[in-house]
Amino acid sequence: MTQYQRIVLASRPKGPPSLENFRLEQADLPAPGPGEVLVRTIWMSLDPYMRGRMDAGASYAAPVEVGHTMEAGCVAEVVTSNADRLAPGNIVAGRVGWASHGVLPAKELRKVDPDLAPVSTALGVLGMPGHTAWVGVNDILAAQAGETIVVSAATGAVGSVAGQLAKRKGLRVLGVAGGAEKCRYAVDKLGYDVCLDHRDPDLAAEMAALTPQGVDCYYENVGGKTLEAVLPRMNDFGRIAVCGMIAWYSGKGVGEAMRLPAAWRAILVKRLRVQGFIVFDHMDRLKPFLAEVGPLVASGAIHYRETVTEGLETAPAAFLQLLEGGNFGKQLVRVGADP
Amino acid sequence: MTQYQRIVLASRPKGPPSLENFRLEQADLPAPGPGEVLVRTIWMSLDPYMRGRMDAGASYAAPVEVGHTMEAGCVAEVVTSNADRLAPGNIVAGRVGWASHGVLPAKELRKVDPDLAPVSTALGVLGMPGHTAWVGVNDILAAQAGETIVVSAATGAVGSVAGQLAKRKGLRVLGVAGGAEKCRYAVDKLGYDVCLDHRDPDLAAEMAALTPQGVDCYYENVGGKTLEAVLPRMNDFGRIAVCGMIAWYSGKGVGEAMRLPAAWRAILVKRLRVQGFIVFDHMDRLKPFLAEVGPLVASGAIHYRETVTEGLETAPAAFLQLLEGGNFGKQLVRVGADP
Repeated sequence: MTQYQRIVLASRPKGPPSLENFRLEQADLPAPGPGEVLVRTIWMSLDPYMRGRMDAGASYAAPVEVGHTMEAGCVAEVVTSNADRLAPGNIVAGRVGWASHGVLPAKELRKVDPDLAPVSTALGVLGMPGHTAWVGVNDILAAQAGETIVVSAATGAVGSVAGQLAKRKGLRVLGVAGGAEKCRYAVDKLGYDVCLDHRDPDLAAEMAALTPQGVDCYYENVGGKTLEAVLPRMNDFGRIAVCGMIAWYSGKGVGEAMRLPAAWRAILVKRLRVQGFIVFDHMDRLKPFLAEVGPLVASGAIHYRETVTEGLETAPAAFLQLLEGGNFGKQLVRVGADP
Repeated sequence: MTQYQRIVLASRPKGPPSLENFRLEQADLPAPGPGEVLVRTIWMSLDPYMRGRMDAGASYAAPVEVGHTMEAGCVAEVVTSNADRLAPGNIVAGRVGWASHGVLPAKELRKVDPDLAPVSTALGVLGMPGHTAWVGVNDILAAQAGETIVVSAATGAVGSVAGQLAKRKGLRVLGVAGGAEKCRYAVDKLGYDVCLDHRDPDLAAEMAALTPQGVDCYYENVGGKTLEAVLPRMNDFGRIAVCGMIAWYSGKGVGEAMRLPAAWRAILVKRLRVQGFIVFDHMDRLKPFLAEVGPLVASGAIHYRETVTEGLETAPAAFLQLLEGGNFGKQLVRVGADP
């Protein structure tokens, strides 16, 4: 039996989560059965959607049960394999969870090519967040050259890719991010035409001033004041891809948020299309995404940035920071050494 | 010069409109210029969208200016014509307005065949409302056999056609209407599987009990409590066609309406598509609509009901009643005699 470390959901948060909602444990790992492999986690991804899994309420995925391991995508090394297509030493991506090791069916693991780009990118720009951004810009928004797009959480793991993809397609790209440093990075490094700070008390007025042609596409990651600033700027036949609403995840600001009729009126009068989506419904689009974006990352044409904390035990604090926008780019936890 | 009667917007309403917002006038009609015709109104249509035209705020169409004739679709008889394709005695449909006569370009008038169905249907089941319903069910909702649809304002000019079309396509059709008489009519005559009264204080609970399989499509005409009852019942990948929001048109209930985050969360988690539309963007779909629904009306397979008031001067009171749900089916004003 292999001993391993894991972080479980100790209790469900009431409002914003805290460190007490998590517990680090030592446990025995079962031996892999037929078709299964035992893997050792190298990188673990932290993502806003995990906040939803902590609540009991219905969401697009079942909640994590109290006492069970928190879910996460990881990049890991195969230690032992009972499956033909994976051998010890292979690097794979899969949902190991907040854990140092895991036993998973081989068919739930995707091989990662360490020669294409650093393997950590399989959790970010070339993983779920990048895939999400690509589906949102291309399939949900159907963004067209010459249009104006707003991307919220503009420098985050998803937003940074969405903004760069939109720019490459020939859109005017306006970002919204938290703080001057992120806004500078959005413009200087990611190529946004302009980036607004969502903490700016004049956000709505600034948004209006900077969108003289209105907004055709809104890549929505946050809800909150940013949404309220964008909605009045939407053009007729505009599209909103609802990918996340991190500002409202823990109930903060919900009581002061705008009421539905004003939004409903905008949808009606401007003939908007508002569509929610999650990438897990679009796995058939993973290959075309990787085919397009893989080479762009390898060549340096698409930029990415990672915030890394060291050791599985740092995950809860890093996750709480992520929810407050304290990360910069893709938030990762280094769980184990490179091979 | 021909004298004619018209009703103008006397003042903009603050909240619910009243009779004082309208004024009946006598005026001179100009002689028709080249390509124009002079018509005599027979039937005039009253529709909820007219409420929006009374306000100064931006909507999908310019507001009616104070002192100008209220807008409306009418069925009229050609009196004199300076256009080849129209002759005196022809029956036409077009936007004459709240007026006994009008001078319009011939190309803005559609010929109506008096042998297909009573010509008043060119304002209802075979006119803009029917066309709206057809586009909503087929193009916006893409309603599929076996799915469940909710239609609000279920017996109205639009809803009654939407419900019947959905039933013919093989959907389970749940209506929401105002009062027991309309609900009975929806089930007995229009073929709804069931119809709920939006005044029922237990509307949300009734809706939940009657949608054990959830709701795939919502044909939205009203907003208000009906929307709040439907939203929690929407299935994953559900569609909402936002065609109107009459419950909120004059600001009533807006202050107690649900806040945006709960709706946004439903859109995200259930991957809903919410789309506003107006029929004027879909004029290319008029011909296929008429080709399909014209014979169904002629054969009696599609039912319709009209509420008629007599004389142009009755239009303001009839319109105010319409906004309160006092009509039953298509609301018409008989302005002139049949030819």
